[in-house]
Amino acid sequence: MSTHKKQGSSLNEKPGISQPEITSGASIEQILRFRRIQPSAQELVSGILAGNITALSRAITLIESTNPNHLAKANEIINACLPHANKSVRIGITGVPGVGKSTFIEAFGKQLTGLGKKLAVLAVDPSSSFSHGSILGDKTRMEELVKDENAFIRPSASGETLGGVARKTRETIILCEAAGFDTILIETVGVGQSETAVHSMVDFFLLLKIAGAGDELQGIKRGIMEMADAIVINKADGDNIKKARLAKTEFNRALHLFPAKKSGWQPTVTTCSAITHEGIPEVWQTILDYFKMAKNSLYFQEKRKEQNQFWMMETINEQLKTNFYNHPEIIAELDKNKKAVQNDEISPFAAATILLELYKKG
Amino acid sequence: MSTHKKQGSSLNEKPGISQPEITSGASIEQILRFRRIQPSAQELVSGILAGNITALSRAITLIESTNPNHLAKANEIINACLPHANKSVRIGITGVPGVGKSTFIEAFGKQLTGLGKKLAVLAVDPSSSFSHGSILGDKTRMEELVKDENAFIRPSASGETLGGVARKTRETIILCEAAGFDTILIETVGVGQSETAVHSMVDFFLLLKIAGAGDELQGIKRGIMEMADAIVINKADGDNIKKARLAKTEFNRALHLFPAKKSGWQPTVTTCSAITHEGIPEVWQTILDYFKMAKNSLYFQEKRKEQNQFWMMETINEQLKTNFYNHPEIIAELDKNKKAVQNDEISPFAAATILLELYKKG
Repeated sequence: MSTHKKQGSSLNEKPGISQPEITSGASIEQILRFRRIQPSAQELVSGILAGNITALSRAITLIESTNPNHLAKANEIINACLPHANKSVRIGITGVPGVGKSTFIEAFGKQLTGLGKKLAVLAVDPSSSFSHGSILGDKTRMEELVKDENAFIRPSASGETLGGVARKTRETIILCEAAGFDTILIETVGVGQSETAVHSMVDFFLLLKIAGAGDELQGIKRGIMEMADAIVINKADGDNIKKARLAKTEFNRALHLFPAKKSGWQPTVTTCSAITHEGIPEVWQTILDYFKMAKNSLYFQEKRKEQNQFWMMETINEQLKTNFYNHPEIIAELDKNKKAVQNDEISPFAAATILLELYKKG
Repeated sequence: MSTHKKQGSSLNEKPGISQPEITSGASIEQILRFRRIQPSAQELVSGILAGNITALSRAITLIESTNPNHLAKANEIINACLPHANKSVRIGITGVPGVGKSTFIEAFGKQLTGLGKKLAVLAVDPSSSFSHGSILGDKTRMEELVKDENAFIRPSASGETLGGVARKTRETIILCEAAGFDTILIETVGVGQSETAVHSMVDFFLLLKIAGAGDELQGIKRGIMEMADAIVINKADGDNIKKARLAKTEFNRALHLFPAKKSGWQPTVTTCSAITHEGIPEVWQTILDYFKMAKNSLYFQEKRKEQNQFWMMETINEQLKTNFYNHPEIIAELDKNKKAVQNDEISPFAAATILLELYKKG
C-alpha cells in the first residue's frame, strides 16, 4: 500500500521518535497494573460496594497514610461509604497475652463463616505496626481463617498515638461494612487504654480469660471487667475443665456485685475451648441474645448515635491537644514548667495559665 | 463664731454640702471594716500563714470568684502559700447519699481534733452552690465539728463545670495547708465523675458504704470501688451489726479479685458506727498505716508530683476545649454537625475536620 505525503506547514507538529508498539499481553498487563495503583476515590468506592477486597485494602491503606492528599481522598471514600455502612454487628474482644485470643478468633471466626457470615477482623494495638505487629501480625495462628474467603483480616494500623490508631480502625469499620462484612471483630490487648477506645466503637464487648492460679483477675487492667458484656473463659479443655468451671462461678459472683448496665444486659460468664470447639456456638448465641434485647429496647441504635458523636468530639479534643503540644513555643517551655510544678515552685494552675498565654500569643 | 467670707473667683470651687464629722468609734470601725474588705494579697498571705481563718476564707473567696482581677490576685496568693503547703494528709471520702457521710465526718473529725489535729473539710460537688448546696451545705449535721476551733468547714465551690469546681478545691487545699491544717478531708457524692477528680487530689481514698439489702454495690458508680484504699461500712450499730459484718466479708472477697494497686497497698474493709463511735479510731489507724507504708516506699512523694503534673495538663486541656467550644463560629456550627454525625450523613472525623478548620480560620 502506498501513502501520499502532504507538505506540512510550520503549524503542524513533527512526528517524534516513535514508541515501540505494544506487542505482548504482559506489557499491557503491566501498564494497566501501573494505572490501577492510583485508582480514583470513585473507583475505590465502586470496588468496595461490589465487595472487592483489593479495593477495600487500598482504601484502608489511604486511611492509614499520613500523606494529607491521601487523607482528603480517604475522607471522600468514607463519606461515600457511610450510607452503606452500619449494617453489621461490631464485637470487641480483649484479653491479656497468653489467653489464647488468636486461636479463639480462629475457632469463633470459622463458626461464623460456617453460618454464612462475612467476617472482618481488625485490631487496635498502638504498640504494633506491620513490621513488628504483636497481634494479628502473626497470621499463622489463624491459618484456617486466613484462607477463608468470607473472612478479611487486617492487622492494627500503625500510629504514634492511641487516638490515631483508634481513628483509623473506626474508619476501617465503615469501609468493611460497606464492602458487605456483616460481622466485625475488633481485637485488642487487655493491658492498656485501648480497651476504652475499642469499647466506644463496638456494640458488644467480650473479655477473654483463662482459669488462673488463684488470683483470677490479675493482669487485666482496672475497669475492663466492668465493660464486659460477656466473660469467656478459654482453654476449658483437658485438665483445665474443672478449674475453668470454678473460675466461672467466681466471675459470676463478682459480676453480680457490679452495678447494673445501662443496656439492662446482665453480663454472662461461659467457658469454651478453642481446640475442642466446646462452648464456641454458645458464645455466638449469647451475642445474638444481646442484639435481640438491645435492638428491641432501641439501646443499640441509641448507643451507635452516641458513639458517632463521641468520636467527633474525641477527634476534636485530640487535635486541639496535638496542636498545642506540638507548638514550638510550648515544646520549648513545657518541660521547665512541668518540673517547677512537680517541685511545688509554682501551682499547676499558674503554670497552665503561663503556657496558655504563650500559645495564644504565638 | 463668725467666719470671714472671701469673694471667690470663678476658678475657685464652691464648697459643697459639708459631711458630718466622724465622731463615733462605731463609724470608724465601719470605715476600717470597709477598707479591710479588700486587703492586699500580701496581707492575706500573712494572715493565712498566721492561721487566721478570716484571711483564709477571704482568699478562698478570691479563688472562687469569676472576676479576672480576683483570679490574678488568687494566683499570687497561691504561689506565695505553696512553699508552706504540702505538709498534710489529704483524704478523699465518697459515698452515695444516705450512707451517712455527714455524721461519719462529724464523728471522724472529732476523733481527729481530739488527737490534736487541725482539720479542714472541703467538698467537690459540681451540683451544689451556696444557695442550694447538697453536701456540707447543711452544717447542722456537723453540729459539733462546726463549733470546733480546730476544724474548718467549707462547702463546695459553685461552678459551671466539674473542672472548675475541682480546680477551686485543689487550690483551696494549698491555702488550708499553708494556714496550718494538717489533715484535709475532701468529700464528694459517689454518683458522678467527681470521684476521679477527687482521687487525683488526695493521698488516700475512702469509700463509705452501708450494708444494703442484697446488692452491695448498687448505686455506686463503676470504677469507684477500684479506687478505694479503704471501704468503711457505716451504720454498723443495733440491728445492723450482723448485716454489716456480712457485707464486710462480701467486700473483702470482691476486693481480692481486683488487681494489685500500684501503691502496693491492699485495700481494707472495716465496719463502724458514727453513732456509737465503734470502729472510728480504727479508720484513722488504717490511714496511718497507709501513710507509713506509702512514705517509706516513696510512693506518697511520687504520687503528689504526678498529681501536680496531672493538674497542670488537665487545666491546659480543659482550657483548650473551653476556648474551642465557646468560639462563636463553633457554637453556630456544632449542633448541625453533631446531628449529621449522629445520622451517619457525615463521618465523625470529617465533621471534626470541618469544625477544626473553621476554628483555625476564625
